[in-house]
Amino acid sequence: MKAIELSYVENQAILELNNDFELPKRKTNQLLVKVEAAAINRTDLVAKETGKLPKGNTILGVEVSGIVIESDSKVFPCGSRVMGLVNGGGYAEYAVMNLGNAMPLSEKLSFEEGAAIPEVFLTAYQTLFWLGELKSTESVLIHAGASGVGTAAIQLVKQLTSAKIFVTASSAEKLELCHTLGADVLINYHEKDFSEIIQQETVGKGVDVILDFVGASYWDKNLASLSYDGRLILIGILGGALVKDVNLMNLLEKRITIKGTLLTPRSDEYKARLTKEFSEKTKMLFETGHLKPIIDSIFLLKEVEQAHQLMKSNKNKGKIILKINR
Amino acid sequence: MKAIELSYVENQAILELNNDFELPKRKTNQLLVKVEAAAINRTDLVAKETGKLPKGNTILGVEVSGIVIESDSKVFPCGSRVMGLVNGGGYAEYAVMNLGNAMPLSEKLSFEEGAAIPEVFLTAYQTLFWLGELKSTESVLIHAGASGVGTAAIQLVKQLTSAKIFVTASSAEKLELCHTLGADVLINYHEKDFSEIIQQETVGKGVDVILDFVGASYWDKNLASLSYDGRLILIGILGGALVKDVNLMNLLEKRITIKGTLLTPRSDEYKARLTKEFSEKTKMLFETGHLKPIIDSIFLLKEVEQAHQLMKSNKNKGKIILKINR
Repeated sequence: MKAIELSYVENQAILELNNDFELPKRKTNQLLVKVEAAAINRTDLVAKETGKLPKGNTILGVEVSGIVIESDSKVFPCGSRVMGLVNGGGYAEYAVMNLGNAMPLSEKLSFEEGAAIPEVFLTAYQTLFWLGELKSTESVLIHAGASGVGTAAIQLVKQLTSAKIFVTASSAEKLELCHTLGADVLINYHEKDFSEIIQQETVGKGVDVILDFVGASYWDKNLASLSYDGRLILIGILGGALVKDVNLMNLLEKRITIKGTLLTPRSDEYKARLTKEFSEKTKMLFETGHLKPIIDSIFLLKEVEQAHQLMKSNKNKGKIILKINR
Repeated sequence: MKAIELSYVENQAILELNNDFELPKRKTNQLLVKVEAAAINRTDLVAKETGKLPKGNTILGVEVSGIVIESDSKVFPCGSRVMGLVNGGGYAEYAVMNLGNAMPLSEKLSFEEGAAIPEVFLTAYQTLFWLGELKSTESVLIHAGASGVGTAAIQLVKQLTSAKIFVTASSAEKLELCHTLGADVLINYHEKDFSEIIQQETVGKGVDVILDFVGASYWDKNLASLSYDGRLILIGILGGALVKDVNLMNLLEKRITIKGTLLTPRSDEYKARLTKEFSEKTKMLFETGHLKPIIDSIFLLKEVEQAHQLMKSNKNKGKIILKINR
């Protein structure tokens, strides 16, 4: 089958289309999926650069949509349209998907849209509700609001709660997208200090939950923006990993919770539980169009390196997709 | 009534017995308690030094035991023996206690023992189970194992779970007390690096929960001692508040949760919920002697300054108590 081969020449990672991959072998409780679309994730870029391949799969790609071609499952028989996380192997014509990770893909959504859902929506759902324990009466600050996880998080908060949504982004265009999806307070971080806006808008109280992809460079402003009993959920360190001078007294006095998390390395069992709850809560909302995957751009499989470069540039609004079998 | 007056001479706090305090006034849903014993807490020392009095009560003291002398409650009628948290006012002959904070004091326990229970056992219960979410199959590291909260935490873990208990303390004598109460692995932090012992004992896995009173000076070793999905509960900063160079990548990769907390400033409603659950789960265990308050020493009310100095020296094993009405 066709798939993207990852190799290294003088420590430089190279992604190239190779037609000679063997078909992956499915076990019980797994589906073999003819992949129609896969999505690019930051975890792929990290794996490529570090050579640390999650779950040891030499083919990158942690989410796909497609058609089931081998199955023991009555819920997902052969011919079913599915989307879901995979343990690597997404940049390929065929991929193995754990039954627990499979979600039905509505006829109303294209395969490209299906591939744009699992990773960002599951991450947003998990961080907002499982880790952040966001309640309807609360407020949330979503950094990088126009990113994949950001756009998913705004929609989930809007559709599942009545919490007030603050977002940051780098341009008026990105903020307009966030506004369309349901964000209440839009902050251009190039123009304003987000912690000052939050102090003003919340009359000094702060927000209850922050979803942060930025890390070190936002640390002090994040802590200043949290309310008593606030939760800072760290899911990325685009702004650096090293914080100088953390004052623990702030954490005690404001009773702050900080949770670091990554979805990809978690256990199959965890992902299956998350997938099940998410799918039950959101299936109808995708059918009715209240939730929608946001796609920035679609590349052919052989154009994968361009797709990676686009993600690296942080210029995308929403997901970057690979079309596989066309 | 008699109570301890807090005043300042040249910024130096002075605690003195004063016979001319007015009796505190009780509201609906409050009890007036004739105080028999009160306990010293670190929060009292902080309030004294900073002049920031929790809930604005000018008399220190956040926990007492005694006899109800005014009440509308059928559960705690006049004459009932009670123990519980108070919003300041504990270092006095009479104190007002919210009904939600009152717990029945068994005839099998003395008033001194009763005053030694609420703050440390509620703090330990809250941090271990509500914040730390400790499960029976897990492991916990309790720093300052011979302190008030430490001795309560060891007993609660031992009696309510089958989790493995690691403790640190500064002397063989303190560690022996921890062992008697149920600690499994004893670490003298003057002699050994606790993170190395934990790596050895858990075969590199780490512990699931850490209760820490120390803060900055233990930060790196605490993070190194936590397992994947581990929780660090920070309830004190005896070893400093300022941590240099925090690496957030560690938090993400190991999916670490850090929670800062203080009990005293929390809402009455929160304390009432905590008191109710704790009392239901532990009442019989105090009756049968499976749980026991650990008392280091008992002072007269007028000796309060000596009692504070003892706590400041960190030499106590268990609680420091004030006898009030004798």
